[in-house]
Amino acid sequence: MMVRQGTLKLKAQLFCGDEPAIGPGKADLLEAIDREGSISAAGRSMGMSYRRSWLLVDSMNRCWAERLVETTAGGGASKGARLTDCGRTVLDSYRALECRLADAAARGGLDGLNALMREQPLPPNAKP
Amino acid sequence: MMVRQGTLKLKAQLFCGDEPAIGPGKADLLEAIDREGSISAAGRSMGMSYRRSWLLVDSMNRCWAERLVETTAGGGASKGARLTDCGRTVLDSYRALECRLADAAARGGLDGLNALMREQPLPPNAKP
Repeated sequence: MMVRQGTLKLKAQLFCGDEPAIGPGKADLLEAIDREGSISAAGRSMGMSYRRSWLLVDSMNRCWAERLVETTAGGGASKGARLTDCGRTVLDSYRALECRLADAAARGGLDGLNALMREQPLPPNAKP
Repeated sequence: MMVRQGTLKLKAQLFCGDEPAIGPGKADLLEAIDREGSISAAGRSMGMSYRRSWLLVDSMNRCWAERLVETTAGGGASKGARLTDCGRTVLDSYRALECRLADAAARGGLDGLNALMREQPLPPNAKP
């Protein structure tokens, strides 16, 4: 989920070449994997297909020096996925970055802008 | 254009209800109108259709207490568009917000995250 603060929405992404290595969606997926213990359950909890969540995990694992998520194959109770130490570090550092950004936005004051904004937009005008 | 700082891309949007009242694209359009003196020339300079740039201006004009862009009809040299005082205030405040966010991101240091990131992603793995 993107950072929302009153009327403000913030999105921070870190890029590895042209590929977003971490951003709001990938961070949420890491958290869900940490909570659910598997990629499929994590994806399901976010309303995502297995294929989509697998692709996001694969992308993260290819962008960082070490994998962020490791899967344990084999059957039984040990089957699943979990964050590596690197995965936890990246997730925590990304959330810390989001906090710094939200603080900076609040500190400078959005009161001036918010005071100029309507509660709701006026209805659209006829198109050109 | 979104704020880019090394590997980091930042996007800030302010919402009026469900409508983005200002964000990277609308701020760039305001700047282009200020420079070009007309909505069509501004849109053209950004590779946008007249319809698209008109819709963005209409959206901004409906989200704020006062119009951000005023158009001067009638023929001749006076025909065109320009920012109102409110438009200039919103644009300047938004750019100041972007600067605060970029400063905050840099201040906290992205060195830890950047040190963990590859120069380029590894090639994709076979899909599930």
